Order: sequence, then structure tokens, then C-alpha cells
Amino acid sequence: MRSLDNTPIVQDGKSIILAHDHGLEHGPAAFADVPERLDPETVFEMATHDAVTGFAVQKGLAETYYPSYNDDVNLLAKLNGTSSLWMGEPYSPQTCSVEYALELGADAVGYTVYPGTNREPEMFEEFQKIQESAREHDTPVAMWSYPRGQAVKEHRKPEIISYATRIALELGADIAKVKYPRSGEAMANAVDAAGDVNVVLSGGSKTDDSEFLSLVETAMNAGASGLAVGRNVWQRDDPEQILDALEAIVFEGAAADEVLDG
Amino acid sequence: MRSLDNTPIVQDGKSIILAHDHGLEHGPAAFADVPERLDPETVFEMATHDAVTGFAVQKGLAETYYPSYNDDVNLLAKLNGTSSLWMGEPYSPQTCSVEYALELGADAVGYTVYPGTNREPEMFEEFQKIQESAREHDTPVAMWSYPRGQAVKEHRKPEIISYATRIALELGADIAKVKYPRSGEAMANAVDAAGDVNVVLSGGSKTDDSEFLSLVETAMNAGASGLAVGRNVWQRDDPEQILDALEAIVFEGAAADEVLDG
Amino acid sequence: MRSLDNTPIVQDGKSIILAHDHGLEHGPAAFADVPERLDPETVFEMATHDAVTGFAVQKGLAETYYPSYNDDVNLLAKLNGTSSLWMGEPYSPQTCSVEYALELGADAVGYTVYPGTNREPEMFEEFQKIQESAREHDTPVAMWSYPRGQAVKEHRKPEIISYATRIALELGADIAKVKYPRSGEAMANAVDAAGDVNVVLSGGSKTDDSEFLSLVETAMNAGASGLAVGRNVWQRDDPEQILDALEAIVFEGAAADEVLDG
Amino acid sequence: MRSLDNTPIVQDGKSIILAHDHGLEHGPAAFADVPERLDPETVFEMATHDAVTGFAVQKGLAETYYPSYNDDVNLLAKLNGTSSLWMGEPYSPQTCSVEYALELGADAVGYTVYPGTNREPEMFEEFQKIQESAREHDTPVAMWSYPRGQAVKEHRKPEIISYATRIALELGADIAKVKYPRSGEAMANAVDAAGDVNVVLSGGSKTDDSEFLSLVETAMNAGASGLAVGRNVWQRDDPEQILDALEAIVFEGAAADEVLDG
Amino acid sequence: MRSLDNTPIVQDGKSIILAHDHGLEHGPAAFADVPERLDPETVFEMATHDAVTGFAVQKGLAETYYPSYNDDVNLLAKLNGTSSLWMGEPYSPQTCSVEYALELGADAVGYTVYPGTNREPEMFEEFQKIQESAREHDTPVAMWSYPRGQAVKEHRKPEIISYATRIALELGADIAKVKYPRSGEAMANAVDAAGDVNVVLSGGSKTDDSEFLSLVETAMNAGASGLAVGRNVWQRDDPEQILDALEAIVFEGAAADEVLDG
Repeated sequence: MRSLDNTPIVQDGKSIILAHDHGLEHGPAAFADVPERLDPETVFEMATHDAVTGFAVQKGLAETYYPSYNDDVNLLAKLNGTSSLWMGEPYSPQTCSVEYALELGADAVGYTVYPGTNREPEMFEEFQKIQESAREHDTPVAMWSYPRGQAVKEHRKPEIISYATRIALELGADIAKVKYPRSGEAMANAVDAAGDVNVVLSGGSKTDDSEFLSLVETAMNAGASGLAVGRNVWQRDDPEQILDALEAIVFEGAAADEVLDG
Repeated sequence: MRSLDNTPIVQDGKSIILAHDHGLEHGPAAFADVPERLDPETVFEMATHDAVTGFAVQKGLAETYYPSYNDDVNLLAKLNGTSSLWMGEPYSPQTCSVEYALELGADAVGYTVYPGTNREPEMFEEFQKIQESAREHDTPVAMWSYPRGQAVKEHRKPEIISYATRIALELGADIAKVKYPRSGEAMANAVDAAGDVNVVLSGGSKTDDSEFLSLVETAMNAGASGLAVGRNVWQRDDPEQILDALEAIVFEGAAADEVLDG
Repeated sequence: MRSLDNTPIVQDGKSIILAHDHGLEHGPAAFADVPERLDPETVFEMATHDAVTGFAVQKGLAETYYPSYNDDVNLLAKLNGTSSLWMGEPYSPQTCSVEYALELGADAVGYTVYPGTNREPEMFEEFQKIQESAREHDTPVAMWSYPRGQAVKEHRKPEIISYATRIALELGADIAKVKYPRSGEAMANAVDAAGDVNVVLSGGSKTDDSEFLSLVETAMNAGASGLAVGRNVWQRDDPEQILDALEAIVFEGAAADEVLDG
Repeated sequence: MRSLDNTPIVQDGKSIILAHDHGLEHGPAAFADVPERLDPETVFEMATHDAVTGFAVQKGLAETYYPSYNDDVNLLAKLNGTSSLWMGEPYSPQTCSVEYALELGADAVGYTVYPGTNREPEMFEEFQKIQESAREHDTPVAMWSYPRGQAVKEHRKPEIISYATRIALELGADIAKVKYPRSGEAMANAVDAAGDVNVVLSGGSKTDDSEFLSLVETAMNAGASGLAVGRNVWQRDDPEQILDALEAIVFEGAAADEVLDG
Repeated sequence: MRSLDNTPIVQDGKSIILAHDHGLEHGPAAFADVPERLDPETVFEMATHDAVTGFAVQKGLAETYYPSYNDDVNLLAKLNGTSSLWMGEPYSPQTCSVEYALELGADAVGYTVYPGTNREPEMFEEFQKIQESAREHDTPVAMWSYPRGQAVKEHRKPEIISYATRIALELGADIAKVKYPRSGEAMANAVDAAGDVNVVLSGGSKTDDSEFLSLVETAMNAGASGLAVGRNVWQRDDPEQILDALEAIVFEGAAADEVLDG
């Protein structure tokens, strides 16, 4: 009953998800160096790039701008989120229902879980309802799986990331979005732990081209199904160039240095 | 799926919302200098002024007085509120359902969110339900977006106000009501951060004519879509005069000192 | 959409509500001096007095005894309540649904709110649901509006009582039951703050005839719509006599000393 | 709308309720001296005694054994319960719905309330729903009314037990099960405070025949409608003998010493 | 209304349940010595062994792999679970609904309860809903009954395990999964306390063949209805061999040393 077949979010088993929920999660400070990108339309434009198989945004952006991009962009509606003003323990309340996401034209939905925190139980329970609701509509579910809390001293440790992907499998996600576990070998283990769930690398904060693309190459070689990337695309001066490079690495198996040289 | 087209709350893209929820939020003390205004009918009368595109009140005032003002006033039903007797952290419980607001004849609904407080998650979740319920009925939703809490040392700081308008956009509001961020430049940034969401300036506590109208002029020049004003109208001896002035500035692009001299 | 027209609870704009929820709120200790009144039938008999426009009891008393008094008594079903054994902060959980109250034959419903306490939000939210549910059935709603909590040093202060009646107006009650604010002038202000909501004086603990009736006279002169009285009736040896006196003051505009002399 | 007429739980206005929820409330330790009674069938057999008008058990026992005793036993389904392993403040979560109890063939339902504890509000609210649900099906409701908490220094004090029965009346129970308030006079007051609600004595822990039966005689003389008894029956070697004795006292008005001598 | 008749989970009154929820409960660390078993298909294969009457997994594994094993494996869908990263008190949130488990083809459902912990009430309440929902569909319910908390100094003490099985009976489970109470005699008492509920031994962490099989033999002789085993099967190099041995002991009454010698 997995829902990944026939979804445009995955192409040839691979995905490049452009994420743009930073306006909520990080606030306008994330736009300090690229003020023109405060206008969501500029980022929706990036999402029309052929390499992008899904565009992850909160409901408000989807409502306002997606009607114009319906034909060219696949919507991955993010169903929970929080502001960085919030000083509580990691927790992300629901901001959109599955039903409304579908009305907005969503091709998939996404939900963040913080395993290991004091509110893990509430997030597991909410994910349960969201996942079953999505299944009713044959809609794929991506889990942003980010272990945190007392037991998680270092949240990118290999065993933590493998636990993160396994939780996505056990709870019924189709895609697990996780941080990079510091080595290709660890990434391969995380992919193994995920069974048939697609593992996508979380792009993280902006780094230089070479570092970023090498990371992606390593992840792909370790069996990842692609990546979810935000700041490393829309905070760049030339997002098209980096999307071209990602397309080559993720979909055509190119090496990072080929692409950089090219 | 935004709902601002064809709503009488916005005229030529602009709004002047007369707010009168102070009986609940501030208590009768707010009426100390204008005791005759304890009678809500006196403020409903002000709301019939041509300049006023929406009148924001709690359900109880709407139930009692709106039937007589249905033709001359556009109702913006405020859906949550709290008394100033309450000493807990900022939080505003729901006082009216969307469905009941519509029965009362509401043209739009409003909801206060305090991002950054310990109860941000509950308010985001409640806003989610209210917003989707309003969408079903094509009713515009205004968010009173007031960051507070540990991380918010100064709640009128430019980046805080830009975050406030962005949260309104991300969560699916049509109108963001925010405090003035101390400069026209900061206001312009807050308007940019809001994307297509209409940003209205919160009128705040009563100040003198010149100070108040200059503020409004600056906000309008920065791209604001108008203002939501309460005490600066109904606490004044001559509310009609100030509404005339606001009409000139907001809808006719007049300068504050023209209006004052005139 | 107010529901006070055509309700038997209000006659000529006035009400005398006999309250008998003390078995729950105060416990059998309230009956120490009048042990025969432990039998609820004795108090239902008092409620048949012509002066009594409504009888306020918990569901259990209504279920057992109201079937025999249906023709002679108007039922005001109290929908929440708590025991005095409870040492928590003021809070009153729901004990009866609106729907069930109506099945029992209720002509109106009542709900206690403690604005200013830590659980104000929960009570506002519950009141919202109850009020809207009552509106569906055209049933009047009385709010026992009793501010308490940190900010309320003295709960009978004039501005507190005016806030209490205003909250009843803002949240959509038809009748506000409040404590006496220590002077007729303060009572008049509380009546003004209530707009079109009927304000009824809470009878309080038993006092002597003269003191009690003078208080009622003062309240009526200040614009109150009557009173809700319990212990000052059913704890008296001769409840009929005091009800005769209240009838004269509330419905016929008599002065307290006329009535006492008579 | 009381539901006690025509219910087999009450016969000639009297009830002997055999309670057997100790497996949950006390655990297998309660069976230490009567290990064969761990088999619920042995206690169901006792419930077929003519004297027993109702058998109070948790859903699990009813599901497994009641199908065989349907004709000979009247089921009082206990709807909440807790283990003695739980060290929290007195609170008893719901373990069975009214609807399911009826499917199991229940003739009445029972619910424990601990007035005066920090969770009194939750129990009142849950009782409200259960009671109204039971009313829809004309099913009698018994309240185990056990005041506890800070204000209850001694939970068998006369005024506490009278409060306990009064709460049962006010909240709409048909039967109040309470502890013995230390004297017949106090019991009589508790019966008065209960109005038309049937008061049944809680049997408590096992005592000798003479002490136990005298207590029952005193309670009956004070106006009690019978008793709910568990350990004083099923922990005895000869349960039939004690049931014969109880039958004589409760239904035939015999004195305890007559019965003991006989 | 018990649901154990005609279920394939029990055969000749006995069950061997292969449990594989360790990916969620223990994380990938559980696979450290058997990395190839990270692939759930390898464990589904074990579940096709004739000895296995039920396979207990979380929803995610069932969704992905059960469609291929539908004919050869009986699914026991585990309905709650938690990660070992969580440092809160024992509590296991719901991860799958009964309805969805049935859509996945479940033959039975399982739910973990931790009696004695601070959240016992929530788990009892959730179990109540799950159990009644399962009954509607004639689906057997297994309770993982694991007392913990302040009052439980040693959670394998005989009286604790007897309490655990009794709670399963009282709350309406069909199968109680409990830890071994340190002796055959204690196990027999736990079986007695369970009435007609099937008691299955929890396999626990991996031990050597002799120790493990002797334990199973003792439990069976004490009246257990089988076992639920995970790590002692899928962490072994030769799972088939141990399953053969368990089949002989559980279904054919063989002694542990016969089987070991054979």
C-alpha cells in the first residue's frame, strides 16, 4: 500500500525536492543576503527547473502562488511547522490538514517528527492520523525525521541517522528526509535501515559548491534516492546553475568534480 | 484560493478596520475618559463612516447590535480573545466559531496569534482549523500577528515585525495586522516579507493627531494596505474628524500635514 | 440573535432567579440550620412562588423533581459546577450538556466563568461551545461572571464588577449574574458596561431582611434587571415572606423600607 | 427521567450488589487467602444467589463469563477502574463505554468519582457524558462516590459522606455507593442528603460476621437501600451463608443477631 | 464475545508469535550482529515457518512487505510503539488505528500497556477504545502487559506478573504477553489470574539455546499458551533451527533437552 509508484515526486526512483519553508522555520533573517527572494514567486520560478521533482512549502505559499505554477511544479505540502521564535523543546504543530493540502493540489505531503524529544508521543500520534489520511487518498508521505532530545548528544551520529530512517519505515512514511551522517558508509547503513523507504538527504545550510555537490554525490553512491534542498539553492546567486549540477549528479550519475569543472 | 477579491473589507486594495474588542481585552477601564462609549451603539455608529471598510468586534457585540447595522457596516468577527485580568502567558482562547460568525453575517474573521510564546503550537493548530473552515466559506481571514515570549526582547523590532507578517503569509492569512516596526523602511520590509498578504498597521494606544496620522502616512508609503484602529478613533472626542483624515490618507493618498491643516 | 424575548425567565424585563445549586457547590453543610431543606422538594415548592421567574439547579435535581413542577416552575439548568472539597484554583467543569438540559425542559441555561484565573481560557472555550449550542435552540444563556485570580485583589471592586458584566456581553451571554460592587453608582456603571445584557445581582450569603432588601432596592435603582437569590430565600424560616418582599421591590418598584414595614 | 423503575438491579426498592472488580483495583493479592477464587467463574456462581440483585465487574470479566450467566445474573458494568500499582492521585480512567456495556448485556453501569481530588473536574466531566449516554438507553447509573484529597482529612466523616451522596444526586446518579459514616445517625443524614437517590453501603474490607452484619442492619435502619459488597462475600469460605444472612437483613428486615443465631 | 475462536493466531490453543518491532523500539543497534536482518524481508521469511502462528510488526513493515506474505503469514499489527531515544516515563503512543490495521490484512492487533506508570490512565483509556473497536470487527487483541513505575521495584516479581495477566483479563484482552516471573510456579499463578485469557511468554533478549528452551518448556508446563519471541529468533544465525525446536516444545509437548539433543 506504499504510494510511491506513479507519483511525479519521484522520477526513475529519484527525487530532488526544493524546500522553501524557511520563511516560517527561520524567518525573514534567512533572506538577509537575498532580499529579492522574500518574494515567493522568485522561488516558485526555481521550482519549475526540470531537475526539481517536488516543491515543499507551507500552505500559505501554496494557496497564493501555486495556482499559477500548477502545471510546472509538483507540490509537496508541508503539514506542520514552527517559528524559530519559539523557545520550547523541538515540536512542530500541524498547520495544514491532508484534506486541505489535496484541495490545494498537493502531490505529496510532508511532516516533521523529532524522535527522542519529550513530545515524541504527540508527534507519533499526529503522524499516525496524517499518514492514514494520506493513504486514503493514495498520497505519498515524506517524514522529516530529526532525532533530538536528552538521549541524542550528537544528532548526526551514524546510529542516530539510521534510527531516523528506520522510524520513517516503521511508522509508514514513503520518504525519509534525514541529515547527513558524516560518511558515505553511515549513509549506506541508514539506507539499509530504511528498507524500501526512499531516503533523501537534507541539504542543510548553505555551503560552497564543491563541498555541497560532493556530499550529494557521496549520498547518491550510498544509495540515497536524492535530496531535499533549500538554502543551498534559493540562497545562491545562480540557482539554475546549482540545479543543473544536482540534476546531473542525482539523475545522470555524474561525479561532483565533473560537474564543477563543466 | 486567497479570499480577498470581492470582499467589502478591502476596497481598492485598502482597508480601514475599526476595532472595538477593548471591552474584552482591556476592560471598562479603557472607557474611563469616554464613559458614553460603554454603549456599543455609539461605536457601531462610527463604523458606518464611509472610510471604515470593516468593524472588528467579539461575537457578543455582533449578536446584540449588528442586526441594526447589517446594511451599513462590514463585520469582521474576532474569533478569539482574552481578558486583561488573566496573568498567564499571552494566549487567546477561541470565543466564536467560524460557522457562528457567518450566521452573524461576518464578512471576514480575525484571530490573534502570539508567535514565540509557549503556547504558539496551540495557536498555530487552532488557526489551522479556523483558516480551513473559513476557506470553505470563501471568507477572508485576518491574523493579529503579535510575536511575544522569551526570544522576543523587543516586540516592535524590525525583524520581529517582518517575521510576524511572514508567519501570516506562511499559515494562510489574507490580512496581517502588526505593530509599527519603528521606521518606514522596516515597514516596507515587513510588507515584502508578507508576499501577497495585505499588511495593516495596528493603531495602538491613543496618541495625538499629528503623530498618529504621520505614522499612518509612513506606513502607507511603505506599502501597507491600511490600518486597524480602535482607541485612536473611539477614544477621541471627534471620531468623525479623524476618520475623515484617515480616509484621505489611506484611500486618497493625502499627506498627514495636508489633512491636519485642512 | 439575543434570546431574551419571549422567555418566561424574564418578565417585564425583570427576573428573580431562585438558585439552589448549593448542595453541590457548598455541600450539606449549607443545610445545617434548615435540615428539612435537604429535601429538594421543599425548595421546588418555593420556586412555584409567583415572584420566581426561574429556578437554577443542577441536572440531578431537575431530573428527579422537575417532572412534577414542569407547569409551575421555569427551569434554568446550571451546566457546570464543582464541590467545595476541591482545593484547586477556581474552575467549574461541565456537568450537563445543552442538549440534555433541553430534554429536561430547561427554559434557559447557566454557566459559571472565573475570568482572571489560570483556567480562564478553558472556561471561555467551553462557554463558546455552550453559548452557540444554546443559540441553535433559541435558549437564553446566563453567565455567572466571577473574576478571580492574581490580578483580582478584591473581587467586588467596582471596576472588577464592570469588567465581569462586560465579559458577559462580549462573549454573548443574555444575563450576567454578578456580585454587588459595593455601591449603587458602581452597580450603575456595571449595568452600562453590559450594554443590552440583563444584569442580575447575586444574592450571596444570608443577611438580615433589611440589609438584603435595601441592597436589592439599590441594585434595581441602578438599573439591574433583578436578582439571583439562593441562601437568602431557602435558608430563611419564612421563604414566602421574603419572596413577597422581593416581588414588590423588583416587579412593583417598592422601596425596601415600605416592604419591611408592610 | 430517573431510571430506577423496572430495573432488576433494585427489587422492592432494595439492592444487594456483589462487587468483583478487585482483580483490577487490588490485584491478585486480594486472592491470597482464597486462591481458587482467582477463577472468575467461582464468583459468577455466587452472583446467582437470589439475594444478589446486581453483579459489578469490569468489562473483561463480563465478556468472558457473562454469556453463561446472562439468565441468572444482572450485570452492573463498571465503566472505570485503575490498578493499585498506580501511585498517582486518586483517579480512575474509563475502561468501558456505555454502548459496549449495553452490548455485553448490562442492566446498569457504575462509575467511580473522587470528589475533592485534583482531578475532580475531569471525573465530573466524564461522568456527565456517561450519565447522559446511559439516560439515552434508560440504563441506571451507580456512582461510587468517594471524596478524597487535601480537604478530606478523614474520608468517613459524617459530613463528607453526606456530601458524597449529595454529589451523586446533583450530578444525576441513580444509586450512590458510599463508605459507612461511623454511625446510623450519620448514615440517615447521608440518605436525606441524597434525596430520591438510592444509597448503598460500601461493604469494605473483610470483617467478622457479627461486625459486618450489624453494620448492614444499622445502615438499613438508617434508610439505606442496600449494600454493595465484595470481599465480605467472595473472600469468605462460605459465601452462600453470608448471602443468606444479607438477604434476611436487607430484604426481610431481620436483625443481625437473629440471623447470626439462626 | 471473546474473539480467539477461529483465529489463525492461535492453533490448538497455542501460539508462537514472532515479534519484529525492534526497529522502532530498540533501533538499528538491535541489528548490530545481524546486519543483513535490517532488511525486513529476511524476517518476513522466518515468519513463514509453520511454527509461527502470528507475526507482530508495526504498520510500516506491514504496508511494505505484507502484501507479498499475505498467504503465508498471519499478521498481528502492533498498534503502539515508541523509540528508545525517548527518555520520558514508559509510554507508548498509538501508531496505527484498528481500522487501518484491518485494511492491511491484520488477523489480530497488539497494544502495550505499562500499568503502574504515571500515564497508566491514558493507556487504559486508549486500550478501551482500541479493544472495543477490535471487538466490532471480531479481531483478537493482545496486550503487552508490562507493569512499571514507582510501586514496581522489580518488574518480574511473581505478584507483579500475576497482576499483569489479570489486568489483561479485566480490561478485555484475548492474549496477555508478559515477562517470565522467575519460576514455573509463579507462571502457573499468573495463568490462573488470567482466567480464560491466553498467556504468552515474552521471549526477551537473546540467550543461549538451552536456557531459552528450558524457559519455554517451564512456561508451557505452567499452563502458558505459547510465547512471543523476537530477538531469540531473528538475532540467531539459524532461525529455522530454533523455530523447529519451539514448534516441538509448544505444539508437540517435547522437552527442551530432547529437542536440544535431537
